[in-house]
Amino acid sequence: MNGADMLCDVLLVNEIDTCFANPGTSEMHFVAALDRKPEMRCVLGLSEGVVTGAADGYARMADKPAATLLHLGPGLANGLANLHNARRARTPMLNVVGDHATYHLQHDAPLTSDIESLARPMSQWVGRVANAQDVRSKTEEAYTASLTKRGVSTLILPADAAWTGLEAPAPTRVQIPAAPLPETSEIEAAAAALRGARKGVLILAGLALREKALETAGRIAAATGAALFTQTPARMERGAGRVGATRVPYPIAQAVESLKAFDVAVCIGAPQPVGFFAYPDKPGLMLPPGCEVLEIGTPEHDLAATLEAIADELGAGEGKPFTRNPFNQNEIAAPTGALNGDSISIAVARALPENAIICEEALTSAGQLATLAPGLHPHDYLTITGGAIGIGIPLSAGAAIASPGRKVISLQADGSGMYTVQGLWTQARENLDIVTVIYSNRKYAILQGEMRNVGVNDFGVNARRMLDLDKPELDWCALAKGMGVEAGRATTIEEFTKLFDAALSRKGPFLIEAMI
Amino acid sequence: MNGADMLCDVLLVNEIDTCFANPGTSEMHFVAALDRKPEMRCVLGLSEGVVTGAADGYARMADKPAATLLHLGPGLANGLANLHNARRARTPMLNVVGDHATYHLQHDAPLTSDIESLARPMSQWVGRVANAQDVRSKTEEAYTASLTKRGVSTLILPADAAWTGLEAPAPTRVQIPAAPLPETSEIEAAAAALRGARKGVLILAGLALREKALETAGRIAAATGAALFTQTPARMERGAGRVGATRVPYPIAQAVESLKAFDVAVCIGAPQPVGFFAYPDKPGLMLPPGCEVLEIGTPEHDLAATLEAIADELGAGEGKPFTRNPFNQNEIAAPTGALNGDSISIAVARALPENAIICEEALTSAGQLATLAPGLHPHDYLTITGGAIGIGIPLSAGAAIASPGRKVISLQADGSGMYTVQGLWTQARENLDIVTVIYSNRKYAILQGEMRNVGVNDFGVNARRMLDLDKPELDWCALAKGMGVEAGRATTIEEFTKLFDAALSRKGPFLIEAMI
Repeated sequence: MNGADMLCDVLLVNEIDTCFANPGTSEMHFVAALDRKPEMRCVLGLSEGVVTGAADGYARMADKPAATLLHLGPGLANGLANLHNARRARTPMLNVVGDHATYHLQHDAPLTSDIESLARPMSQWVGRVANAQDVRSKTEEAYTASLTKRGVSTLILPADAAWTGLEAPAPTRVQIPAAPLPETSEIEAAAAALRGARKGVLILAGLALREKALETAGRIAAATGAALFTQTPARMERGAGRVGATRVPYPIAQAVESLKAFDVAVCIGAPQPVGFFAYPDKPGLMLPPGCEVLEIGTPEHDLAATLEAIADELGAGEGKPFTRNPFNQNEIAAPTGALNGDSISIAVARALPENAIICEEALTSAGQLATLAPGLHPHDYLTITGGAIGIGIPLSAGAAIASPGRKVISLQADGSGMYTVQGLWTQARENLDIVTVIYSNRKYAILQGEMRNVGVNDFGVNARRMLDLDKPELDWCALAKGMGVEAGRATTIEEFTKLFDAALSRKGPFLIEAMI
Repeated sequence: MNGADMLCDVLLVNEIDTCFANPGTSEMHFVAALDRKPEMRCVLGLSEGVVTGAADGYARMADKPAATLLHLGPGLANGLANLHNARRARTPMLNVVGDHATYHLQHDAPLTSDIESLARPMSQWVGRVANAQDVRSKTEEAYTASLTKRGVSTLILPADAAWTGLEAPAPTRVQIPAAPLPETSEIEAAAAALRGARKGVLILAGLALREKALETAGRIAAATGAALFTQTPARMERGAGRVGATRVPYPIAQAVESLKAFDVAVCIGAPQPVGFFAYPDKPGLMLPPGCEVLEIGTPEHDLAATLEAIADELGAGEGKPFTRNPFNQNEIAAPTGALNGDSISIAVARALPENAIICEEALTSAGQLATLAPGLHPHDYLTITGGAIGIGIPLSAGAAIASPGRKVISLQADGSGMYTVQGLWTQARENLDIVTVIYSNRKYAILQGEMRNVGVNDFGVNARRMLDLDKPELDWCALAKGMGVEAGRATTIEEFTKLFDAALSRKGPFLIEAMI
C-alpha cells in the first residue's frame, strides 16, 4: 500500500464513500488508489465549481461529508465560490487537494501556488500531509474537524506522500464526540428572555431547521408567544404537518419591517440577522435598536437539544405542536395568466411529488413558492447560503446522489445557472432524477433592481452591457442537449405546466426553459 | 463625483479603456460610474474565469493592462485559475474587486471573506482602498505595479469608498519608469559563458519572444553557436522570416533529451526550465547536471535590451540575422487520411491567414503545428502558461478584442474547453472574429497518459469515470448554438478542411467540433 491507499481506506472506514472529483497529474496516484476501491463512488465534474457544489448538496442531504478531489491551487480556486457557500451552510466536507511532491516545490513549477492561502478563507480546517506516514492521522483530523467544527476541511496531499510505500495497520473508525450543549446559564437566559418578552422571536439557523428541532421551536413559540423566523436555510424540512418559520427577507427594508415589533430575539445557531449588503443610510443589523438579542449556540452545538433544553426550562410540554395548514396541496388550481415566477411557483407547488427536494437559486423569481410551502407535501428545501452564485445545478446533483428515490426540483435563475452550467453533464452522466426549471429572463434581474436602488433608472450602454443577458439570447435547450440532458421550452404557463407534469412522470434529468 | 468616478478617471487617463466584468451588488456604484463613461468598453463574462482569461489575452496582445471588475471574494475566486495563468505569463492586469462597505465588515455578512488571502497567491500586487480620498493614489499604485512588476494587480474597493462623494482635481497620466537592464556584470558573464561554451543554449521567456528580441537572440546564436529554446510562451511572434526557437518539451524525458548536450545555458527572463510535475525517479531540473546556468533578467527587466547588450558585448553585429524557412506555407498539401491532431495541424497551417493570432490549449493534439510554424505567415502564438486549464476560449476573446482586423484561431481541447465554455457567449456578444477548433476526443487524454506513467494500463471503473468524457458525449455544436455561436462538426479531415476554409472566409465567431 502507499499513502494514497491509506487515504482511501481512512475515508471508506469512516463511511465517506462518495468522491466528487476533477483530478490532474499531481493526483494520479490517488486516482490509481481510488481505482482499486470500486466501493468508492467517484463522480466527475467538468469544472471544480460543480465538484464542490455537488459535495455541498450531497452532505446537506446525507448528513455526512463527501470527499472532493481537486488539482493543486487552481483546481481548488475554481471550487472556492461554492466552498464559500458550503462554509456559510456549515456543510461538512473533506477536500483533498493534490500538490507537487514536497521536494519539487523549491522549483516553483508552473502550477505551484500558495494553496493554504487560497484554502483558509473558505475552510474551517486546513492541513498539509507531511509524508506517507502522516496520511492517516491528518486525514482523520480533517474528517473529525469536518464534523465537530461542522464545515469544510481542506487536506493538502503532496504527490510524494501519495506515492510513497507504507506498511501500516488498516485504519479503524474515528469516534466523533457528541456535539455539546451551550452553557446552562445561556439556556436559562434564553428561556427567561422569551418568558419576559413583550413580543419575542426565535430566529433559527442550521440544524435547527430540521423537522424535530422545528417541532420543539413550535412548542416554545406556543408557550411564549414568540414568532418563528429563519435565516437563509442550508436545508429546511418544511411542508404540511411541519412547524413552519418565516425567512428573514433579503431586501433590507422588508427585513427591518418584518422584525420591527420584537423586543426580544433569541437566535439559535447563528448570530443575529445582518444585511446582505450595506447601503448608504440603511442599517446593517435587521433587528430594531433596543431589541434584546441573545445568540445561543453555534453550528458546533447540538441545536435540536439546545431547543429542547430551552423548552424544558420553559415547561413547554412535549410531543408535536399543533400546526395548521393554510390549505392542502391538492386544492391548488392550475395556474393561468402570464408565465412568470409566481405562476411557475403555483405550477410547481400543485404538482410537487411526495418527499421531494427543492433546490433554489432564483431569488427574484421563486419567492412565491415559500408562501405556498406550508400546504405542500413535506419536502426539503435547499438554497444558496453564501451568496456566491452558481450553486443550484451542482447542489441539485449532489442532493440527488445522496437521496436515491427522491425527486429533486431545481429552481434556477439563468444568470447564476450559467456559472456552473457544466453540472448538467454530471446530471446526465449519473442519470440523476432532477427536473431543472430555468427562469429565463435574460438579465441579472437582481442587479437591475440594485442599480435602481443606487438611483440609476435610465441604463446607459455600459450598464446594459453588464446587466443584460440578451444579444445573443441563451438557448438553454441547446445547452442541455449539448450535455446530454433532455429539455423543453415553455413560453406560456400552460406549456410549462404540461412540461413540468411530464418531467415529473419520468426518471432522469430534464430541463425546462421557462421564457419569463 | 464619487470614489467610483475617480477610479474610472484614473483608468481612462492611463489608457485603460477596456473592462472585463461580472459585477454584483457591492459594485453597483462602480457600475453606475462606468455607465457615465461610454468611452470605457465594458465586456461581460458569464463567469469570472472568462473575465480574467479574456483580460490576459487582451493584455498579451495590446501590451497594456485591461481592468477587470469582480464581485467580492467569490467573484475573485472564480477568476483565480486564469489569474494564475496570467501571473505565470507575467501579464499586466488591474483587477477591481468590490468589497462590503468598511463599516459592514464587522457583521460578517454572508458574502464576507478574506479577499487579501485569496488574492495574494495569484497577484503581484494587492492593495485595499481606505476611503474615497484614497482611490486615486491606490489605483495609480496598482496601475504602476502592473507595468513595473509586470503582473496582476488586485485592488480591493469597499462599497463606501466607491459611493462617497469627492472633490478632487482630475487625475493625470502616471509616468511609468522605463524597465531597467540587469547589472553590467551579469551581461558580461552571460556573454563570456556563451563565448566559452562547448555547446551553449539561450533559453528565452516573456518579452524575449517578440520579433525584435528574437532577432537579437538570432545574432547571438550566429555569433556563438548557441541553440535557441523557449519556455512556455505567453506570446511568441513566429513564422516565416522570423527567428525561431524550440520549445522545451513538456514530457520530462523529452525535455531532458533535448537539453542534454549543453554545457552552458543562459536563461533570459525566467529561471531555468523545471519539470511541470515531479515523478518518482525523474529529475526536477531539465538541464543536465554540471551545466553552467546563468539566469539573466526577470520579467521586470527590459529583455529586448538585455539581449542587445549581450549581443553588443559579443560583437554580434547588427541588423536582421539570416533565417531559413524550411518551406513556404503555400507548398503545404491538403491533408489526407485520418482526422486527428496532426492532420488538423496541417489543415490549419496551410490555410493560416496573414497576421493571424493562434491561441492554443490543446497539449496532446496541436503539437505538430509548432513544427510547421517556421514556414507559415508571420503570426502570434499564445498559450497556457500556468497549467490552470480553461484559458483558451476566454484568451482568444481577449486577444480578438485587442486586435481588431486580425483573425484569431483558437485551438482548444475539449476537456479544458468545458472549464470556461461560457466564453463562447462573450465571443458571440462582441462578434469576435474567432475560429474555434475543438479537439473532441471525449477524454482527458493527457491524464490517461499520466495514468500510464504511474503504471496503470488497465483502467478500472473509477479511473474511467474520472478520465473519460463519454457517457454522455458532449455535443459542442449544440453548446455553441446555446450561446449564439455558429458551429459545424467534422468527422473526416476533408470535412474539417472545408469547414475551416469556410470559417476563415467569413467574419465573426465560428466553432468546429473535430471528432478526432
